[in-house]
Amino acid sequence: MALYDESDVKTFLYGKGEDPMQQLWNDFESRLKKLKTIRYASSIMEWDAQTGAPKSGMEPRAEALGYMSELYYGIMAAKESGEQLAALELKKDQLNELQLAMLKKFKREYDSVTKIPENEYIEFTMLVSKASNVWEDAKKDSDFALFAPYLEQIVDFIRKFADYRGYTDHPYNTFLDDYEPGMTVAKLDVFFDQLRKGIVPLVKAISEKGNAIRTDFLQREFPIEQQKAYSKYLLDHMGFNLEKGMIAESVHPFMMGIDPDDIRLTSRYYIDNVVSSLFSTAHEGGHAIYEQNCDKAITGFYMAEGVSSGIHESQSRLYENSFIRSRSFWEGHYDVFRTFFPEQTADVTFDEFFRAVNASSRTLIRIESDELTYSLHIMLRYEIEKGLMEKTIKVSDLPELWNRKMEEYLGITPPNDGVGVLQDTHWSCGLFGYFPTYALGNAYAAQVLQAMNKDLDVEGALKKGDFNSLKGWLGERIHKYGSVKTPDELMVIATGETLNPDYYVKYLQDKFTALYDL
Amino acid sequence: MALYDESDVKTFLYGKGEDPMQQLWNDFESRLKKLKTIRYASSIMEWDAQTGAPKSGMEPRAEALGYMSELYYGIMAAKESGEQLAALELKKDQLNELQLAMLKKFKREYDSVTKIPENEYIEFTMLVSKASNVWEDAKKDSDFALFAPYLEQIVDFIRKFADYRGYTDHPYNTFLDDYEPGMTVAKLDVFFDQLRKGIVPLVKAISEKGNAIRTDFLQREFPIEQQKAYSKYLLDHMGFNLEKGMIAESVHPFMMGIDPDDIRLTSRYYIDNVVSSLFSTAHEGGHAIYEQNCDKAITGFYMAEGVSSGIHESQSRLYENSFIRSRSFWEGHYDVFRTFFPEQTADVTFDEFFRAVNASSRTLIRIESDELTYSLHIMLRYEIEKGLMEKTIKVSDLPELWNRKMEEYLGITPPNDGVGVLQDTHWSCGLFGYFPTYALGNAYAAQVLQAMNKDLDVEGALKKGDFNSLKGWLGERIHKYGSVKTPDELMVIATGETLNPDYYVKYLQDKFTALYDL
Repeated sequence: MALYDESDVKTFLYGKGEDPMQQLWNDFESRLKKLKTIRYASSIMEWDAQTGAPKSGMEPRAEALGYMSELYYGIMAAKESGEQLAALELKKDQLNELQLAMLKKFKREYDSVTKIPENEYIEFTMLVSKASNVWEDAKKDSDFALFAPYLEQIVDFIRKFADYRGYTDHPYNTFLDDYEPGMTVAKLDVFFDQLRKGIVPLVKAISEKGNAIRTDFLQREFPIEQQKAYSKYLLDHMGFNLEKGMIAESVHPFMMGIDPDDIRLTSRYYIDNVVSSLFSTAHEGGHAIYEQNCDKAITGFYMAEGVSSGIHESQSRLYENSFIRSRSFWEGHYDVFRTFFPEQTADVTFDEFFRAVNASSRTLIRIESDELTYSLHIMLRYEIEKGLMEKTIKVSDLPELWNRKMEEYLGITPPNDGVGVLQDTHWSCGLFGYFPTYALGNAYAAQVLQAMNKDLDVEGALKKGDFNSLKGWLGERIHKYGSVKTPDELMVIATGETLNPDYYVKYLQDKFTALYDL
Repeated sequence: MALYDESDVKTFLYGKGEDPMQQLWNDFESRLKKLKTIRYASSIMEWDAQTGAPKSGMEPRAEALGYMSELYYGIMAAKESGEQLAALELKKDQLNELQLAMLKKFKREYDSVTKIPENEYIEFTMLVSKASNVWEDAKKDSDFALFAPYLEQIVDFIRKFADYRGYTDHPYNTFLDDYEPGMTVAKLDVFFDQLRKGIVPLVKAISEKGNAIRTDFLQREFPIEQQKAYSKYLLDHMGFNLEKGMIAESVHPFMMGIDPDDIRLTSRYYIDNVVSSLFSTAHEGGHAIYEQNCDKAITGFYMAEGVSSGIHESQSRLYENSFIRSRSFWEGHYDVFRTFFPEQTADVTFDEFFRAVNASSRTLIRIESDELTYSLHIMLRYEIEKGLMEKTIKVSDLPELWNRKMEEYLGITPPNDGVGVLQDTHWSCGLFGYFPTYALGNAYAAQVLQAMNKDLDVEGALKKGDFNSLKGWLGERIHKYGSVKTPDELMVIATGETLNPDYYVKYLQDKFTALYDL
């Protein structure tokens, strides 16, 4: 069942008569449409850049993207934007839910752009552009001292921006709310505390028991063309509509939701690491199915996209880990997988394969980490970002602090900062408040899974390869709403309660206790 | 040797001091830069659309492209554009050759946009958009009466536009000049007259003699992946730098010059028609090498692209026909070709292969026509466009006239209008004056080839596969100038005289007399 009837929405928005309210709304909406088309053009240029454009063509692309940003900024930050916003805020009672959501989303972006003095914003842009280059060198040479002065300046800017933009309770809240509307330090402190208590002992128990899972066959040669063919098969099987989207190849896999009728994703292929393409495709496929399933009636209204980074990540993790890494899925699917790779799997049972792709191994690097330890990597980053915001942590303390926390949570210590505090690009880009959404995604996913289990025989569906029923359930409770409902509202609709990390901890405990016979 | 020293150009354009002329130029140039970035964004979106984007994503792309056109128009047609143009025209003596060329190019576009009343231009745009759809149906059903009323309106608009824009001697001249600066009806009448006298009897002689060339093996199965691999090999071999460009696949092959450091082309692949990909790649490769070879110093100045459609086509035809269809090339290259397709060529000699890819066969369809008859198809269209412009031909006369001319020039008559007067999309898009550039390209190519032969052993180079010397010659005399020199100036630089169709006629006579032992 569609949530929004397109004709109702359109009648409301564009009905006859010279209603001044109507006029006001139409003007506002045509502003949104312009922003959307500029974003469309930029997205296609980015897609092009990531999926095969010659490297030598970087300069004109940078110019074009820069000009698009300039245009976007000009329209977003225009005096008229503020006037329209103010006028519409006064008439909120005449707007429907969809319109209110559009207004809220626009206001969030407008505030983030206009409350910071333009000259400081430009300074900051130039700083992070330089810092990204410096970070690359620093990471390569494992030289934190090289990067530290840039990071200090970035943190200073971020703190100042929080002041300009205003915040409740904690400056970090401003940035948390950017990526996960409604999220706060108070909530995340409780959240990570529960993860710490639940996951750290589990990791310890497994590492003490020793790893007995066979994984050698995963390093066999799986021909690239076959991996590509399988990726397409898997996407189709999962419920992604390849007629309204496409898959390409890129160095870092990503999903790009250009329009619900044009959803794209990439994967990457290594001949001796089939797991990489398999789960990249499943992960990005989860993101892609979310956006492909947004209600068609809200497409034109800037709302047909994931509401937050955390909710988005929950859908990718659900497909990647809860579905495609599940025992039930492989029980039903392994014979199909084998038809793609008969030689490579000749001496491997489905149980061996299932266990191998779920094996836990503690790693220094976040993006290589497994399902069990992923959120611990995030917890560490959350604590550091929070400390930097509230000035209880100094940039110069980071390497030592990082290594201490790695030892505490994972029981391993980086031999150098390149594989430690310098591993991620986020801070060099000025990205603060984003990391927590990865852990939130994992927790939302587990909470959604337990709610699905009440309504559906999820394991049975996975065994049969019946992804339609799973997609249908998610579509009705999460996907179709696009950005109209808040993350909290979505979780209540889908699971009956707001974020509750107990489900996530229990999910990991159950899964890994069984896997490792603890 | 580079033509323009970048530092000189930059010093001139951006030298120190508060020179008001300097300021004027800088303002003008920043306007050009904006137009260029908008065009960049639109090009990438078009590329994306042609090379794999899901069809379902058409709507947001159309919106984005529409908005880019609006932006482009707004900047191009702005009052300030006219003021800058007028001011710079007054100071022409202070501008260098490069700047004068930029100014001329801008003025050409500015005039074509601003001299037509905006409401009529919008009406026209809506008309051709509808006409294109009607034409598709009309072609499919071979129903000229369906399309005729639209074509009549389009012709009326085109005539009116010629009046608005102004012309010398003949209204058609305005549109000829759009695609081939300096070209006129007076020149083309002489040109086509010579082609008629030279080529029509040759076609007749060959068809009377009967076709004795063996071509059966060209329909064998040549695996698509091998064709793709060979296309890449051929491009590289011809001198296209694959590091600064790319090749993709599309329904209709094309070249897209985004920037001299980002030149793209497509080919198409049919398992039972290797000739299609081979010569599509060679043809688009010729276009691509031209743009890749523009002088780097003029890149940033909107000038690093082909000067006219005719000169562009001359480079693609030179590579496609004079080089890659030559006996010398296949003599040296056939063994390499065979390593890609050993089974398919096992019983075929190089001479048989060379003759097969050059076999002449009269066809009703322009885009399927061979090297010998191609320009006759164009001559017919030229005569019709000219007649429509000067009102000596009525739209309703077209089918009969078309068929009569086909019989006269080629000795064949279309059984229906779908493969006759309705075969091309150009008129339905409002494109008049473009067709002649195809024939001009062929003639320029032959003229350039004879000039090359004076300086170089072209056949020897082709036999050795030494494309570097050929590219070097063309680069120095044509490519490096980009859009700075006019077509006439380029032909004088490269060949010592302006367009002279004798070389083309002689080239065809020599080649096909030998091929068919006439």
